[in-house]
Amino acid sequence: MLIMDLHIDNILKDLEKDDIQAYLLTQFTNVEYISNYKPTSFAFCIIKENPIIYASKMDMEIANKNSKIEVREFESFDVMLGELKNDGIKNLAIEPSLPYSTYEKFKDDFTISSKNYVDKQRMIKTPSEISNIEKATEIAQNAFVSLDILNRNDCENTVAFDLVKAMIENGASKESFDTIVTSGANSSLPHAVPQNKQLERPILIDWGAIYNGYCSDNTRTMVYSEFQHEIWDIVAEAHDKAIKSIKPGIKCCEVDKVARDIIEDYGYCDKFIHSTGHSLGLDIHETPGFSIRDETIIEKGMVITVEPGIYLEGEFGVRLEDTVSIDKQANIIGNLPLMIDE
Amino acid sequence: MLIMDLHIDNILKDLEKDDIQAYLLTQFTNVEYISNYKPTSFAFCIIKENPIIYASKMDMEIANKNSKIEVREFESFDVMLGELKNDGIKNLAIEPSLPYSTYEKFKDDFTISSKNYVDKQRMIKTPSEISNIEKATEIAQNAFVSLDILNRNDCENTVAFDLVKAMIENGASKESFDTIVTSGANSSLPHAVPQNKQLERPILIDWGAIYNGYCSDNTRTMVYSEFQHEIWDIVAEAHDKAIKSIKPGIKCCEVDKVARDIIEDYGYCDKFIHSTGHSLGLDIHETPGFSIRDETIIEKGMVITVEPGIYLEGEFGVRLEDTVSIDKQANIIGNLPLMIDE
Repeated sequence: MLIMDLHIDNILKDLEKDDIQAYLLTQFTNVEYISNYKPTSFAFCIIKENPIIYASKMDMEIANKNSKIEVREFESFDVMLGELKNDGIKNLAIEPSLPYSTYEKFKDDFTISSKNYVDKQRMIKTPSEISNIEKATEIAQNAFVSLDILNRNDCENTVAFDLVKAMIENGASKESFDTIVTSGANSSLPHAVPQNKQLERPILIDWGAIYNGYCSDNTRTMVYSEFQHEIWDIVAEAHDKAIKSIKPGIKCCEVDKVARDIIEDYGYCDKFIHSTGHSLGLDIHETPGFSIRDETIIEKGMVITVEPGIYLEGEFGVRLEDTVSIDKQANIIGNLPLMIDE
Repeated sequence: MLIMDLHIDNILKDLEKDDIQAYLLTQFTNVEYISNYKPTSFAFCIIKENPIIYASKMDMEIANKNSKIEVREFESFDVMLGELKNDGIKNLAIEPSLPYSTYEKFKDDFTISSKNYVDKQRMIKTPSEISNIEKATEIAQNAFVSLDILNRNDCENTVAFDLVKAMIENGASKESFDTIVTSGANSSLPHAVPQNKQLERPILIDWGAIYNGYCSDNTRTMVYSEFQHEIWDIVAEAHDKAIKSIKPGIKCCEVDKVARDIIEDYGYCDKFIHSTGHSLGLDIHETPGFSIRDETIIEKGMVITVEPGIYLEGEFGVRLEDTVSIDKQANIIGNLPLMIDE
């Protein structure tokens, strides 16, 4: 309850500073972050002096049960806009992610500005949020170990399926994203879909659990040939040195540069085709991220993945990923070894 | 290939009619519908005389492999906007679902209008799309039957899990939405999350498979007490009569009214807390829907669910759902009986 009020208080301060009267939230995890009620259908959460959520009729039972702030049933845009205008609201902030069609409903009646107040607040995790992410990671890593993947001769999609099952049996509510189990040449696709085909070598697994709403995210690649080991060593060096470089006060892009420079030194810069990492929490992808262009200053309480990779089209790919929570330095969450071997 | 060109040709005709030079697509299933490439990261698909997709670096391998139209690697908004301007583009249509922050990147350089050209085209399914939905339904219904749910004494989340597994073993790529297995009082929540608790009575299951990108959707409720049977009969009557009422030429809201009037006649109108149905295809929720406000005229080739329900808070809920494809009348897809008993 205290935390919820703090979240709203912080936004009210942001609104006052920017001379804005109200803030409209529709993204499910933002509404959950503020109210503890996660919509299953649409919802309009308005942060103002007396915050309110307009929920779908079909969500009223769950919203009344979970929400820390007042909930009213959504009847129509006309009714909702009328109530906001009666409240004296003339200018309204929206989330950057708001669909254009929803923006259109509000734009004629209010002065609109796009603000990322909630995203900004969600960057810094509370101790209880971090402990949920730690628990999600523990569940996911234990499930991975229990599968004993190197001693199986299954299809990619069977292994993916069994991994999800093991996570749920270990206490996860579900997977935090579509589990990637890919092998052989397919592993050069960063977002490969598990196929109904026997595991080849190498095997790349990218997986995570959700615990109490919070996500985990890890990747391991199990390599075999000498050349695969060579590439693995480069990615591991980028992974380790990027993590060691993380500390409050430096920019996110500086961490990306540490990983990218190492991979470049070995001649594979154009084979590292994504960012070095992303924040996670209630969503699997949050801001900030360790990317070339992200100049966000790293702060204590951020939880970000580090996942360099090298992708050789037609041959194979290697990616290694851990999630770190940032205090005076970066602490790796979980304790799964980077090298998985027999 | 022919179909893909037809899809693009239809949009080019829409653009010409509205005197618009280009149409920006970013919704993954819209990009897939047009190009056969489904993004795994962001992508900007521009339909114009020479259509083009700007894809993320990490998607280039898969985009080049699958796309029917030219793919270029996205470098930056500046580069992309510059190329569009060099092409002489001055006015641009966007999807209603486009995030506000993306709209902001385009709004200063182009005259923007929001258009649902692709959504409109996706309303009418081709025979091959319908056959994918039929196959997805067959997989999902066979999986349901194979579970023999009434003779199990498992937890809700175990049953949900086994149902997904059976769908994948039957050829689904994945579930088409988070499988709902809910029982006892929880069944009064339309979007209940399966719990780690023994099945109570009644049992409500809402599930679907994805086959070749296309979704299926069904709900069955297994009732026990006399009162539960009484409610089930009302919902079944609404389900059957709504389906019988469907034909090309009438409005979607008329079908909703058939179901709603029956439930109202029995005194449960305020307990039917959602629409009567939604279209499905590449997405689980598409337009049009059988809702109070949807005045879309029903046409041959539409595929829409019919899913009336009665939800008694604190007691239980009953929902019955089939998906129909519309020809001269509505044909129920699949052959699973509505009443599931021992």
